[in-house]
Amino acid sequence: MQTIVAVVGGTGAEGSGLAARFAQAGVRVRIGSRKQTARSIGEQATGHTNADAAAEAGIVILTVPLSAQVETLKSIRGSFAPGAILVDATVPLEVAIGGRVSRILTLWDGSAAQQAARLLPGVPVVAAFHALSAEALGNLDHPLDCDALICGDSAEAKASVAQLAALIPGVRAIDAGPLDNARLLESAAALLISLNLRHKVKESGMRFTGVPKA
Amino acid sequence: MQTIVAVVGGTGAEGSGLAARFAQAGVRVRIGSRKQTARSIGEQATGHTNADAAAEAGIVILTVPLSAQVETLKSIRGSFAPGAILVDATVPLEVAIGGRVSRILTLWDGSAAQQAARLLPGVPVVAAFHALSAEALGNLDHPLDCDALICGDSAEAKASVAQLAALIPGVRAIDAGPLDNARLLESAAALLISLNLRHKVKESGMRFTGVPKA
Repeated sequence: MQTIVAVVGGTGAEGSGLAARFAQAGVRVRIGSRKQTARSIGEQATGHTNADAAAEAGIVILTVPLSAQVETLKSIRGSFAPGAILVDATVPLEVAIGGRVSRILTLWDGSAAQQAARLLPGVPVVAAFHALSAEALGNLDHPLDCDALICGDSAEAKASVAQLAALIPGVRAIDAGPLDNARLLESAAALLISLNLRHKVKESGMRFTGVPKA
Repeated sequence: MQTIVAVVGGTGAEGSGLAARFAQAGVRVRIGSRKQTARSIGEQATGHTNADAAAEAGIVILTVPLSAQVETLKSIRGSFAPGAILVDATVPLEVAIGGRVSRILTLWDGSAAQQAARLLPGVPVVAAFHALSAEALGNLDHPLDCDALICGDSAEAKASVAQLAALIPGVRAIDAGPLDNARLLESAAALLISLNLRHKVKESGMRFTGVPKA
């Protein structure tokens, strides 16, 4: 049986894009929203509150701004099914404190993903999907042109997320090591935002050369 | 007249690789060494002490470990020709304090390149070449498969370095913004080292998709 995926914060650009791509690949997706039930997009992707979205999922993907990460995790952590994985895609952008979208903050835990892991003891946390352009994800008729780096301390959880990532056309999943490497992935996402701004594009991405698949 | 390039710390793997590639492209290269005169490699690439190497160059490339960066800059800063550019390729790896090669330190100035700029007032500093694999550079018969991100506060200096980078077969230069973005490039280099270790390869690289040339 295929894993059910919840996208918490699934009404934002990044979350909607991921939800639409996974639904397109035949995955059952539960879209979570902050204040009310999110809009369903077809039978495959149904709308819920964040906590309800998470409750029946095997993989819960968090796609919220840094300013909402802690609060959202606290609001859903009681709803995780046994064995469910959290995929944190938070980029600790300075914009959370009124700064720039192309700069990151240094968090006490080292990275947003490690902060998530601290808040969810016992839940395998994987850092992934930071670098997939929301614009490119939303453009359902075109494959992406980028790799998905995946960090985490559970090899099994990483493998599940790698499998999920590879369902998006054009995406190659790459194992990028333990969860404390997430800060490097979060930095790389800020670098892409910076390139987008500088070059007036919206879909910059990264391909890694000389590295085998996950 | 073509700019003369000095590679300070040019006897290390990264420095030698860059020196050999530029010499191959017809650039006059001055290879600098820490304690004595570096070995010349043909007419095109001559050996010197670090200070002598820098003295006659239009572009001085620094390729030393973090532990040697400050001392080396202090030893050569009196030798810069008027208008000469410093290209800093230092990655602030934790190994400098006995830690790991796949982790970086947070420096007071924000990045190794900004630290270099503080030590060289009046010299345009450009951050570049962190992510070019020494192994791949040294393999002169094969083109590289990666992009060279370039940060700096002087558009003119960045353009000169972009021109130089593009002389290496397979390398595309990309403008990555102001010098304070260098921390993102330094992080990305640590990410590549981490991928090399994890996947037991030596030539991982990055290509950016959806971004035009510098």
